[in-house]
This record gives sequence, C-alpha cells and structure tokens, in this order.
Amino acid sequence: MPTVDKLLLEEALQDSPQTRSLLSVFEEDAGTLTEYTNQLLQAMQRVYGAQNEMCLATQQLSKQLLAYEKQHFALGKGDEEVISTLHYFSKVVDELNVLHSELAKQLADTMILPIIQFREKDLTEVSTLKDLFGLASTEHDVSMAKYSRLPKRKENEKHKAEVAKEVANARRKQHLSSLQYYCALNALQYRKRVAMMEPMLGYTRGQHFPSWHIMLSILMRSAHHKEQSMPWRTRRTEQ
Amino acid sequence: MPTVDKLLLEEALQDSPQTRSLLSVFEEDAGTLTEYTNQLLQAMQRVYGAQNEMCLATQQLSKQLLAYEKQHFALGKGDEEVISTLHYFSKVVDELNVLHSELAKQLADTMILPIIQFREKDLTEVSTLKDLFGLASTEHDVSMAKYSRLPKRKENEKHKAEVAKEVANARRKQHLSSLQYYCALNALQYRKRVAMMEPMLGYTRGQHFPSWHIMLSILMRSAHHKEQSMPWRTRRTEQ
Repeated sequence: MPTVDKLLLEEALQDSPQTRSLLSVFEEDAGTLTEYTNQLLQAMQRVYGAQNEMCLATQQLSKQLLAYEKQHFALGKGDEEVISTLHYFSKVVDELNVLHSELAKQLADTMILPIIQFREKDLTEVSTLKDLFGLASTEHDVSMAKYSRLPKRKENEKHKAEVAKEVANARRKQHLSSLQYYCALNALQYRKRVAMMEPMLGYTRGQHFPSWHIMLSILMRSAHHKEQSMPWRTRRTEQ
Repeated sequence: MPTVDKLLLEEALQDSPQTRSLLSVFEEDAGTLTEYTNQLLQAMQRVYGAQNEMCLATQQLSKQLLAYEKQHFALGKGDEEVISTLHYFSKVVDELNVLHSELAKQLADTMILPIIQFREKDLTEVSTLKDLFGLASTEHDVSMAKYSRLPKRKENEKHKAEVAKEVANARRKQHLSSLQYYCALNALQYRKRVAMMEPMLGYTRGQHFPSWHIMLSILMRSAHHKEQSMPWRTRRTEQ
C-alpha cells in the first residue's frame, strides 16, 4: 500500500511511468469506492423505502378503519360504539402517519441526499474527468506519432513547425486535463471519509427525536384512554 | 333495520318463512363482516409487512457498513477512523434492528393474530355451519317430497312408516344443524365488536413502549457520542 496520500500536480506535466502507475492506484481506489457507494446507497434506499411503505400502510389502515361505517351492515345495533372507537383509532393512526412521513422525509434529506450528491457530484466528476483525460492523452499520442513520421527534409520545415505546434497544443490540453483529473482524485480522497460517515449521522442524528417523542406520547395517550373503557381487552391474552 | 339482536333458538324447529327471512338478514350481515374483515386484515398485514421490511433493511444496512473494511481499497491511509466509525454505526443499526424485530413480533402477536383467529375461527365456523345447514335442509326437503309422493293404499303401510321415519330423522338433523348455525350467528354478533377493536389495541397498546423508549435512548446516545467527535457533521446542512 503506497504511503502517498495525493497525486502531485507538478508531476502531471512530465507524465512519467511512475506517475502513471501511481495514478492507476488512485483510479483503482476510486473504482472500489464507486462500487461500495452504490451498494451502500442501495441499502440506505431500502431503509428509506421501508419507512415510506410504513407511511402508505398507515394511510391505508386509517382509511380502512373509517370504512367500517360505510359498510351498511344488515344488523347495525350497537355499532355506534364500534364506529366511534374505530374513528378514534383512525385519528391515532393518522397522527402516527404524519410522524412516519416526517421520518421518511428526514431520511431522504439527511441520509439519502448526501450520498446521492456524493455519487452524482464527486464520483461522476472523477469519471467524467477520467474520460476527458483519456481523450486528451490519445490526441497527444496521435500528434506525437504524426510528428515522428515527418520526413527529415529541409523543404518541409513549415509543415514540421505546424505539426510541432499541434503537438504543443495537444500536450497543453493533456496537461490541463490531467491537472483537473489529479485534483478531482485528490479531492475524492478527502471527501471519501466524510461521505461514508455523513449519511449515517443523518440516520441517527437528533432531528428524529422530536418525532419519536411525539409518537411515543400519541401511543401512550391512546393506550391509557382505551384501557379505561375496554375491560374486555385482556380476554385474548388471558386465554 | 331489524331491532332484534339474536336468532331465537326456539324458532329453529318450526323454521317458518319469518324465521328464514330473519336468518337471511344475519347471513347478509355475516357476509359484509367477512368482506370487511378481509380488507382490514390486508391493511394490517401491510403495516406488519412494512415493519418487517424495516427489520430486513436495517439488517442489510448494518452488514453493508461492516463491508467497508473488506473492500481492499488501494489507498487505505486514514481508513482506520472510517472503519471504526462505521463499525460503531453498524452496532447502533443492529440495536435498532433488534427493536424493529420486536415491534414486528408484537404486531404479529397482538394485531395480526387476533384478527386472523377471528377470521379462521368465527367466520369460518359460520361459513361451515351454513353449508351443513344447507345440506340438512336439502336432505329434509328430499325426504318430505318422497313422503308426499307415497300412494295412499293400505298395503304400503310398512313402507310409509319407513319413509316417515326417514323424514323425522332428516328433520332432527336439520333442527340440530340450524341450532348450531343460529348459535354461531348469534355468537358472531357478540364477537364482531370485540374483533374489530382488539387488533387496534394491539397496534397501539403499551407493549410497544419499552421498545420505543430503548430505541430513543440508542439514537440519543449515538448522536451525543458522534457530535463530539465529528465537527464536520454540520457541513452539508450549513450549505
């Protein structure tokens, strides 16, 4: 494992085999990071998806509880109590639904968004600059080959100067794109550590607590309210 | 809407058109209840499914966090801190996973199980007894028709007695099955109200609170722990 932690910009112009070899180490690292980031994003999106599904499920349950009233039961005697209780539960589920939605939104904003931004911005930038650097290198190689195939005769001096200018341009272009590529790879090494840990802070951080506290109090209130009025509630559990 | 709240067992033997008409009202009510119960169960299973998916999702996320260490990054400098932080987060997610699993189990036991039991036991019993009552009625009708087609001649006295016995048997059988069917329909009217409200108590009742409290404390602990060591955590949000 190399002890270097960045690509030196001053070595970009010379473009030596040693520099190229070091570059390939950084490229391999970026490739591994891209693959890992995709897997991590997938796992995080699954958590977000579950939280989102919980919103939709509580929404459906709340609606279904209200639907009891609209069933037109042939025997409706004593249904007023059931209807009012199911209305009450529907409201509790609605309140929980609001909080589940908030949790889902928070997961989206503080967990999913940072890692998507890292992928779309940092990783995509490296990948784009890699392509541009590759194109510039090829262009430079082509103009170099053209220059080396030039006949040595005097009368071609003007054409020779043109090709030399082309080579110089290509080298300048390649130098510029390598500088940008090196910078992006160096920045990626810095961003990498933060990018890996930031979404998890979003997952566990304090923003969630108010919601969880409210959720807890809704459930406690609903349980206390109902425990008084429903003595039969222990029937099943006593069996 | 009839003001009766049960089928009178003493009317089962006579089996009058009035009784049959009242029976059809109870049957219609049972049909509506079966349909509504199936929809309610579906909505509740969706909530349970979301909670279960949250278990699986947190499990996958925890594994993915540990997997960072095994990526063999070409540039591993400074990774010790990332690895130890992701290990820490993996443990937090594991603890949350245990609690999500407990919540899923509690939903299964206190919300899904009672309504499945109601469907499998009470509703299925009514439906089975309806079939048996139908069979017994048909059998009775057949033996009655046979009896009424008997010739009136004296020499058939023995055969007549046999058929009369058959009719009596069929009537006894039909009477017995109608008693059972009426009982089940009456019991369903009693069970109905409890069955509709019991699963929702399971959803909101106190059993959840210990888990929610622990979940809250895990998240608070992890946030305090990390807030100290990660000054960069506000970077994104300050953008």
